[in-house]
Amino acid sequence: MNSFGQKFKFSTFGESHGKALGCIIDGVPAGINVDLEFIQNEMDRRKPGKNAYATARKEGDKVEILSGVFEGVTTGTSIAMVIFNENQKSKDYTNIKDLFRPGHADFTYWNKYGIRDYRGGGRSSARETAARVAAGAIAKLLLKEIGVLVQSGICAIETIEAKEYDFSHAQSSEIFALDKNEEQNQKDAIIAAKKKHNSVGGVALVNVKNTPIGLGEPIYFKLDAQIANAMMSINAVKAVEIGDGIESTKVKGYDNNDQISLEGFKSNHSGGILGGISNGDDINVKVHFKATPSVFIKQDTIDTNDNEVSCELKGRHDPCVAIRGSVVAESMMALVLADMAILNMGAKVDHLKKIYT
Amino acid sequence: MNSFGQKFKFSTFGESHGKALGCIIDGVPAGINVDLEFIQNEMDRRKPGKNAYATARKEGDKVEILSGVFEGVTTGTSIAMVIFNENQKSKDYTNIKDLFRPGHADFTYWNKYGIRDYRGGGRSSARETAARVAAGAIAKLLLKEIGVLVQSGICAIETIEAKEYDFSHAQSSEIFALDKNEEQNQKDAIIAAKKKHNSVGGVALVNVKNTPIGLGEPIYFKLDAQIANAMMSINAVKAVEIGDGIESTKVKGYDNNDQISLEGFKSNHSGGILGGISNGDDINVKVHFKATPSVFIKQDTIDTNDNEVSCELKGRHDPCVAIRGSVVAESMMALVLADMAILNMGAKVDHLKKIYT
Amino acid sequence: MNSFGQKFKFSTFGESHGKALGCIIDGVPAGINVDLEFIQNEMDRRKPGKNAYATARKEGDKVEILSGVFEGVTTGTSIAMVIFNENQKSKDYTNIKDLFRPGHADFTYWNKYGIRDYRGGGRSSARETAARVAAGAIAKLLLKEIGVLVQSGICAIETIEAKEYDFSHAQSSEIFALDKNEEQNQKDAIIAAKKKHNSVGGVALVNVKNTPIGLGEPIYFKLDAQIANAMMSINAVKAVEIGDGIESTKVKGYDNNDQISLEGFKSNHSGGILGGISNGDDINVKVHFKATPSVFIKQDTIDTNDNEVSCELKGRHDPCVAIRGSVVAESMMALVLADMAILNMGAKVDHLKKIYT
Amino acid sequence: MNSFGQKFKFSTFGESHGKALGCIIDGVPAGINVDLEFIQNEMDRRKPGKNAYATARKEGDKVEILSGVFEGVTTGTSIAMVIFNENQKSKDYTNIKDLFRPGHADFTYWNKYGIRDYRGGGRSSARETAARVAAGAIAKLLLKEIGVLVQSGICAIETIEAKEYDFSHAQSSEIFALDKNEEQNQKDAIIAAKKKHNSVGGVALVNVKNTPIGLGEPIYFKLDAQIANAMMSINAVKAVEIGDGIESTKVKGYDNNDQISLEGFKSNHSGGILGGISNGDDINVKVHFKATPSVFIKQDTIDTNDNEVSCELKGRHDPCVAIRGSVVAESMMALVLADMAILNMGAKVDHLKKIYT
Repeated sequence: MNSFGQKFKFSTFGESHGKALGCIIDGVPAGINVDLEFIQNEMDRRKPGKNAYATARKEGDKVEILSGVFEGVTTGTSIAMVIFNENQKSKDYTNIKDLFRPGHADFTYWNKYGIRDYRGGGRSSARETAARVAAGAIAKLLLKEIGVLVQSGICAIETIEAKEYDFSHAQSSEIFALDKNEEQNQKDAIIAAKKKHNSVGGVALVNVKNTPIGLGEPIYFKLDAQIANAMMSINAVKAVEIGDGIESTKVKGYDNNDQISLEGFKSNHSGGILGGISNGDDINVKVHFKATPSVFIKQDTIDTNDNEVSCELKGRHDPCVAIRGSVVAESMMALVLADMAILNMGAKVDHLKKIYT
Repeated sequence: MNSFGQKFKFSTFGESHGKALGCIIDGVPAGINVDLEFIQNEMDRRKPGKNAYATARKEGDKVEILSGVFEGVTTGTSIAMVIFNENQKSKDYTNIKDLFRPGHADFTYWNKYGIRDYRGGGRSSARETAARVAAGAIAKLLLKEIGVLVQSGICAIETIEAKEYDFSHAQSSEIFALDKNEEQNQKDAIIAAKKKHNSVGGVALVNVKNTPIGLGEPIYFKLDAQIANAMMSINAVKAVEIGDGIESTKVKGYDNNDQISLEGFKSNHSGGILGGISNGDDINVKVHFKATPSVFIKQDTIDTNDNEVSCELKGRHDPCVAIRGSVVAESMMALVLADMAILNMGAKVDHLKKIYT
Repeated sequence: MNSFGQKFKFSTFGESHGKALGCIIDGVPAGINVDLEFIQNEMDRRKPGKNAYATARKEGDKVEILSGVFEGVTTGTSIAMVIFNENQKSKDYTNIKDLFRPGHADFTYWNKYGIRDYRGGGRSSARETAARVAAGAIAKLLLKEIGVLVQSGICAIETIEAKEYDFSHAQSSEIFALDKNEEQNQKDAIIAAKKKHNSVGGVALVNVKNTPIGLGEPIYFKLDAQIANAMMSINAVKAVEIGDGIESTKVKGYDNNDQISLEGFKSNHSGGILGGISNGDDINVKVHFKATPSVFIKQDTIDTNDNEVSCELKGRHDPCVAIRGSVVAESMMALVLADMAILNMGAKVDHLKKIYT
Repeated sequence: MNSFGQKFKFSTFGESHGKALGCIIDGVPAGINVDLEFIQNEMDRRKPGKNAYATARKEGDKVEILSGVFEGVTTGTSIAMVIFNENQKSKDYTNIKDLFRPGHADFTYWNKYGIRDYRGGGRSSARETAARVAAGAIAKLLLKEIGVLVQSGICAIETIEAKEYDFSHAQSSEIFALDKNEEQNQKDAIIAAKKKHNSVGGVALVNVKNTPIGLGEPIYFKLDAQIANAMMSINAVKAVEIGDGIESTKVKGYDNNDQISLEGFKSNHSGGILGGISNGDDINVKVHFKATPSVFIKQDTIDTNDNEVSCELKGRHDPCVAIRGSVVAESMMALVLADMAILNMGAKVDHLKKIYT
């Protein structure tokens, strides 16, 4: 179950402190120009070690394409991408070899599999998400061909919420802040928690422009359901809202409905999705990341021999996973949309006639 | 894409005003006693027309099993279940034949498929969820064999929130209220909106007890991701929270972590899931339903000929879809867990040895 | 695992002597006119009880569509079709209730599931294939929209082989014989075996004309591989050949290659498929059906209590399953091609541009 | 569609003359000792350049495992394996850059994708099968844990058929010959064709011992259907027979049935599969490979600019692909069985009780 998607499908591999991680992307249409600089730039947005708001682990996260691209163009065959790990410090983890870090997947992996690669969380580490960003970059190149734009930013750190959403500001912000007026407060909150060996949570907003009407496959592959699936699969995500989300439960039906004119929808409470199908309006999704479970404060836990022990973490961790997580959420959105764009072909017999007759 | 699940998989069919709706359930283990009364009782919990808090459409929702059960026991072959529609009033919908109801899927179905069964929303109607409850009943019978209990109730109507969760009270409440002290207020809010031809939203809480440790298939079929997928696929759902959900983003990492003792986890902020795998603690999921889009107030919209028109709905509708939706959410949870229980077999080579050697 | 196909996918249900059998077809493009007479005609071609060369069981095999079609046109939603059983004589099977018929699936179902519906073979009966023909009829309606024609006939009964292939003759032949000169010999062979309470095998040839170039999804969803899968899933099939099949292993490479001119391929040894992708030439597939295992001669077997017993069958059986099997093989071919036609959309980015820009 | 399997699933990548090829294997149970020497030995059986009966291309086919194995044991996470290409001579192919080799996939890839990596056939090359053998080695390690043995050999070269099957002789034979008495004739046939710049076909037999009863998932994931799918997906395969295969169509039903005693089946015409489910007897499958399409004789073809041209191949090719193909067929069998062994868990509710209660 290391694959995601139906037709534009990617499969990932790799552990935090293993040799490499990467992915195979299947179902990429032939004929897409593969802009390597763009792909590496996407990787760089997520990569660790850039500033005080991310883990100190330094990784170049250099992507290498092993297949599926010929003379700079996709050939329709499977694209393999690999990222070799460079900066493992596995010895940081020998003290947690036999115990279960609270808030982490150590306990559940151990019980499910009877074995775990404890170094940096092994496969359960957010390092796995590098492979998603690599795959997401290919998805974005596909979406660009049909004019779809996916972007993201941080709309909240703890309770400090953005009042306005400026995606171009987010691009240049060290914490991908959507609201430049709240940015410093948000940064301060992160640093304050970090100094106390603690961590904070945050919320990413993913926005899509120019989605074709009609994406999403009812009933069990609805666009919003698949987005929720994609986002909740990201490490530390605990809630997903589509459009107005929770707010939609607090207003009356009349007020929540988006009335329609010939110019389009008069409002966008729905977040661009009706009945699980895109309506052409902006897609807006909020992704809620819990505070990083890796804190450097003594905690109670047990070990693999059923002893109650005390857990003191070392290692290098993000004080707020939401930040780099927003890039991952953006990538997952691109991956969902690329898949949906392909899946929708065939919704009408006219589509087949356009291709075959 | 009318199927859900990987191994315990169900596929549904049927429109609101068609002849029948139903499902095929694939991958049901052989040897389960099929308690027809239990199944019908599950249907009855969701069925419409029971009281003032639901639509007036009266349906017996009598389920008939066509296959897969022999002498009262599952045989391992596919189980087909069918529910014939009885109380269609399709003429209620002739006035909306050519226009797009705000907040509904009319616009997106029309654009995606170029045709739509306008009667009661056709396939996009929440009537489809009857088939989910039928399938969910089979899932529950499976889960009972391994001791897993799934339950649900309403924890909020608009902003009126339950302070305490009493699932046994919810069973007998007309609105599945979890908090008997808030129940009357919640009922009043529904009736008040209904009188004004409007509607309200609400929140269902689904709880699971005795989940085996180890359910969930990282990385892209995590238990929480699949739950989010399942819940978001239900009509009118706009947000899903796992465990403390959004609250987890507002507290520090240390406070959100569930520390561990030999008696188990000392708290359950995580909602019973770590790294996408069940940890044995209670699973708690909040499912947020928007206010019913069917309101009897004049709204602006357009029609299929690109005219701006006014939309005045007739028909019979739930003033608050969250209520019957909570039964559907509970069913979807059972369906996810049944699938996960089967998928987990094979996580260790020891599982194979237990079965084959 | 009662589903077949990736995007144009059908799921079937039903036992030989249960209430009904049928299917849900998912992924049918919207906008196809549903010709009910054509569908019923397809059913009639396969239905039992028509003549001396088929089982005496009489079934009307009347198909009813429960969903997915509105005002005679597909809507893009799942199509459910149901066929109620009429002529069960379950008591014919009480004598085999506890024993395993040689050549049948009794032994393996019992061991796999620990329970079996012994009446007429239950789910393992070829009666299940009625649902395939119903689904196949929808597939054919889709293929008709893009000009693809699927046809079939019997090319051998035992060792009596057709020398020429006349598909229009096969249409009117009681045994779907491709060669009218061999037809009587083939019929005689069937009747001779039947008189001796025995049975014969046979070979069906499926032919496709006007396949678009490009169908088939390398590497693991190749057109020929999926055809082999489809055909081998039919009851009693023991071998599948694509194009010249086994003959291709006996000639030299030069002689087996299909050289190419501007008019097209100069020969068609390949059976219209190269590298798992259709090349536009006729697809030819031979499907080999073993002699019906239901023979009315005393055989040795064991029972469910581990006794060695003697097995004497009653009931009604086809003396040669290949005959009605050829209709099923034809249907499976249509189902594979419908799926492949949809899956191929998205092979090039140009396809997406045609639909979305 | 570069993935195969449902639960034990592998996905492959790589082109003949690209940087590397490899696979991700998903769903491998945790706790399997990974014997690297065994894996490399499997690779070596298939690898090219070993003798006069294979292509002269020399590749070490050294496999590197990038993930999913920790301290020599599988962890339940996805296993990535990579094989870097070493001995590409891409310039051998510049003369076929713009034309379509008869018998190859050049024409179909070009038409499907609008682009192709012409070097050595790109993705359509049998070189891709190296990744299958790597994945198959992991499957075999799993099967070993439950006592299942998969083996193979050559039972025919052109019309020279083995009279007896000696799998241990096949292991040491340069052409994997099953019959040592026919081996020299078979070798001579290959060399004779090669000298004339031509090629020959052949037949591999795959045999499985100790299969647990019950593997195979009716109706559309039957063991024999999935085997047919697997085998037909291998380059150059044109026919697949299960058990007696085509012979089963030529004898009477009574003679083809395998009668049963308390000691087991009295014969094995079925090839160990009844109703799509393993019956515990030996599985026998014949896989028919056409003569290699790469012949060094002038052939007629067209080019990408619609000119009729003459095609004269250079490069290095197997004079008989069946030989190395038999190793691939054996690997595919192991992969199918590993998947089926896992999928079967959950067939009975007793399986769940064994694991969960």
